[in-house]
Amino acid sequence: MMLTLSCVRFCSGLTTFRTAAHVRPLHSVSGITVAQIDEEVAKLLELKAQLGGDDGKNQFVLKTPKGTRDYNPKQMAIREKVFNTIIGCFKRHGAETIDTPVFELKETLTGKYGEDSKLIYDLKDQGGELLSLRYDLTVPFARYLAMNKITNIKRYHIAKVYRRDNPAMTRGRYREFYQCDFDIAGQYDAMIPDAECLKIVHEILSALELGDFRIKVNDRRILDGMFAVCGVPDDKFRTICSTVDKLDKMSWEDVKKEMVVEKGLSEEAADQIGQYVSMQGGMDLAERLLQDPKMSQSKQACAGLSDIKLLFSYLQLFQVTDKVVFDLSLARGLDYYTGVIYEAVLTQAGVAPVANDTQNGAEENVSVGSVAGGGRYDGLVGMFDPKGRKVPCVGVSIGIERIFSIMEQKAEALAEKVRTTEVQVMVASAQKNLLEERLRLVTELWNAGVKAEVMYKKNPKLLSQLQHCEEAGIPLVAILGEQELKDGVVKLRVVATREEVDVSRADVISEIKRRTSEA
Amino acid sequence: MMLTLSCVRFCSGLTTFRTAAHVRPLHSVSGITVAQIDEEVAKLLELKAQLGGDDGKNQFVLKTPKGTRDYNPKQMAIREKVFNTIIGCFKRHGAETIDTPVFELKETLTGKYGEDSKLIYDLKDQGGELLSLRYDLTVPFARYLAMNKITNIKRYHIAKVYRRDNPAMTRGRYREFYQCDFDIAGQYDAMIPDAECLKIVHEILSALELGDFRIKVNDRRILDGMFAVCGVPDDKFRTICSTVDKLDKMSWEDVKKEMVVEKGLSEEAADQIGQYVSMQGGMDLAERLLQDPKMSQSKQACAGLSDIKLLFSYLQLFQVTDKVVFDLSLARGLDYYTGVIYEAVLTQAGVAPVANDTQNGAEENVSVGSVAGGGRYDGLVGMFDPKGRKVPCVGVSIGIERIFSIMEQKAEALAEKVRTTEVQVMVASAQKNLLEERLRLVTELWNAGVKAEVMYKKNPKLLSQLQHCEEAGIPLVAILGEQELKDGVVKLRVVATREEVDVSRADVISEIKRRTSEA
Repeated sequence: MMLTLSCVRFCSGLTTFRTAAHVRPLHSVSGITVAQIDEEVAKLLELKAQLGGDDGKNQFVLKTPKGTRDYNPKQMAIREKVFNTIIGCFKRHGAETIDTPVFELKETLTGKYGEDSKLIYDLKDQGGELLSLRYDLTVPFARYLAMNKITNIKRYHIAKVYRRDNPAMTRGRYREFYQCDFDIAGQYDAMIPDAECLKIVHEILSALELGDFRIKVNDRRILDGMFAVCGVPDDKFRTICSTVDKLDKMSWEDVKKEMVVEKGLSEEAADQIGQYVSMQGGMDLAERLLQDPKMSQSKQACAGLSDIKLLFSYLQLFQVTDKVVFDLSLARGLDYYTGVIYEAVLTQAGVAPVANDTQNGAEENVSVGSVAGGGRYDGLVGMFDPKGRKVPCVGVSIGIERIFSIMEQKAEALAEKVRTTEVQVMVASAQKNLLEERLRLVTELWNAGVKAEVMYKKNPKLLSQLQHCEEAGIPLVAILGEQELKDGVVKLRVVATREEVDVSRADVISEIKRRTSEA
Repeated sequence: MMLTLSCVRFCSGLTTFRTAAHVRPLHSVSGITVAQIDEEVAKLLELKAQLGGDDGKNQFVLKTPKGTRDYNPKQMAIREKVFNTIIGCFKRHGAETIDTPVFELKETLTGKYGEDSKLIYDLKDQGGELLSLRYDLTVPFARYLAMNKITNIKRYHIAKVYRRDNPAMTRGRYREFYQCDFDIAGQYDAMIPDAECLKIVHEILSALELGDFRIKVNDRRILDGMFAVCGVPDDKFRTICSTVDKLDKMSWEDVKKEMVVEKGLSEEAADQIGQYVSMQGGMDLAERLLQDPKMSQSKQACAGLSDIKLLFSYLQLFQVTDKVVFDLSLARGLDYYTGVIYEAVLTQAGVAPVANDTQNGAEENVSVGSVAGGGRYDGLVGMFDPKGRKVPCVGVSIGIERIFSIMEQKAEALAEKVRTTEVQVMVASAQKNLLEERLRLVTELWNAGVKAEVMYKKNPKLLSQLQHCEEAGIPLVAILGEQELKDGVVKLRVVATREEVDVSRADVISEIKRRTSEA
């Protein structure tokens, strides 16, 4: 019996029942042997260890998985605001929206992400298909187009993606995070949809008021052409490209060292690359490079440079050239880009989360963190089509976790009062035994579409009802009392001014609607 | 060399590059042996098999995982409408919202779902924590409350959940599906929050216009009390409860058989249960059962019955008793309920998806499919709290996949034109070489917040621009031509009536805004 009791003490909740069931056979045995007891004790101690030892309580870890987080109501209110801005922009540009499952067949993701494939989350093989969590929204989009034989669409997709990366959550880097993607698929005239993607990034980052930003633009064909004319062997293009991609986090010296020492590139080739990747400019730079004796030898580079020129001419019409820079050091990690690539970075270190937790002072003004990126990927849909039919695509992905982090910090810094509900009126009573009257009135309000609340107590104190309004930012209180009921009125109180006015019961809905639509 | 060529033929896209790399060593070996060739051939054939055999194209399956689906733009438009109705209702009742990760630590879900635990999706162990996809939103909510020591909150959460069930997708049953949850946590007076949950179900199902519905109500304490007074042994409560839960899909005869034959219940006990579970009514039934000589012996049952009475009195004030039935056969599957439980079913077989694909004519009017369910779970948060502190909770979950299916069918049946974008105006041109002018005007419109589109072609045909407007339901076209540019006007065309009017360039934005705000 003691055994049972001591065991029960280790457990709580549902587990108690199971353990009791486990122990029962022990009692039903009349002539129990020492060996049998030892065996049972061992079993129970094992069970105890599983349950967390001697602490007398559950010992499981109460947390979200590594690299993930909950959003509390305040964070959700900020998130909703950001989403509304982004969706508003996507809709203004005429995008439809689609949704795809959170997981895909494993093979759908295979061979699309280069070295980053190791970061894909796989599901356990529980029988049936092998599945992986989506790594981005671009590959599912391409799969969707091929599967439904869609050759042109302008769509946005806002959803969570998953990467088994080493999270740096203070910098807004998570393993589960939202992407807000806008893509244009279809055979169109060069650079018009590409320019619209940049216009969208410009509109969204301006509207969110995150401080100054810069949109870097380059082209995979220019990079490849540059590698060719600098003497990089064909089979080293991708790996040298990855190294160039680190220029926003590493100095040129370190990048060069990686090229030469780790990747075996000749020092001469590296130095030639070094001259190009330090170049930044606008349409003029593209024109200059078209005249560059070395660069102009590459047909690919010339095609890319002509398109950059065309792109800038459209960007001028879109009135966004103030933030766009043609930057030859921009490379981007993903395998599937085939043409224009771009990346937006916030340049105001003050508001950016990276500046706060950087270990290295020198970095402070360098890497403020990319908040959007994208480019042209004309080959990806063809990889899914059984006949290899290509659908040219260009798109952009807004990474909002960093944006959230910044907006949260801003809200905190300003000590902004963020409302987490939209309640317009609280139905309250000053006296006891008026629950029924309160429920009757709140029903009328709900049925009329008014956002209203009532306390779930039979006899709440007026003070606690008013306090709730202050805390939650509810602007009005509809107060019922014996006198009001007798007079056929409701006392309407404005929380901010404490002003009170009796409104006839018949007019109370229209009066509340009038007052809250004013605000 | 032939070997290389034939191999390359099997492949396409990125895989080509890899295979070529794979074959290269063969050529660099000068004195190759037959055995070596055989070995290489074997390797290549294996590679070929992996790539899909002789078909000369990629053979991977182009599909979404079993039990999942994409949402196309039309489906998304319907989904958005449904969500807006539901969120509108949740906000009207003053709920905040939260979000939690799509996966939880595996142990967080352990021991919460009874027999259904086998349907949980686990992630592959790739090092680090063991994770599972969330099975519902209730357990993550309880984990969130315990983790943040929150003792009262009214929140909604709309997100996807995952169950490795056998999907019946034509009936709107999927492995990945949305739940829209509304829950009230806190120590309040009995039945007030519970009644509000039912009010919410009533409001949402009425607003969605899905035809008639019924909300069945019962209480776990009444079920347990009933089992006790009918002579069901304590340790059979849960399993007999699961069998009772099948009464909406099976006849009483079959349910009784399962109780007696499979679960070893005495026939006498089963018959007594049979008498109770056929009972349906309202407050009157609860009163009658409180007088029932057998039922009244159970304290638990009496507590449940008194609460049902109280619940109905609040439901009267909320004006929803027309749809609510106290039904003793309602059991609900999940382990964690401790008090009131409820489930909403659509009763109009005509619009319900089940009626269409049922094999068994007799079923047709029985199981139209549950679209919402919930109840009180006062013990769940305590299972997560290190000190076992309880937070009473009650909530409801709206399952919208079935609702989507019905709305989709309705839209199809009515041949409704569902708009998938909100574009107000298309900027078009009648002549060539006006791309720049179009881009200039569309930029003005975007910057003024007008939803506008332009074709991504240098010289699109006017007809194809007008056709796009017809198809996409865009109401206005702003047409630019040489004459209009000369006159400083824009030709505004109403797509529906083909009426055209010249508007001065300076007034075009306000004119478009005026016309589209009218609609």
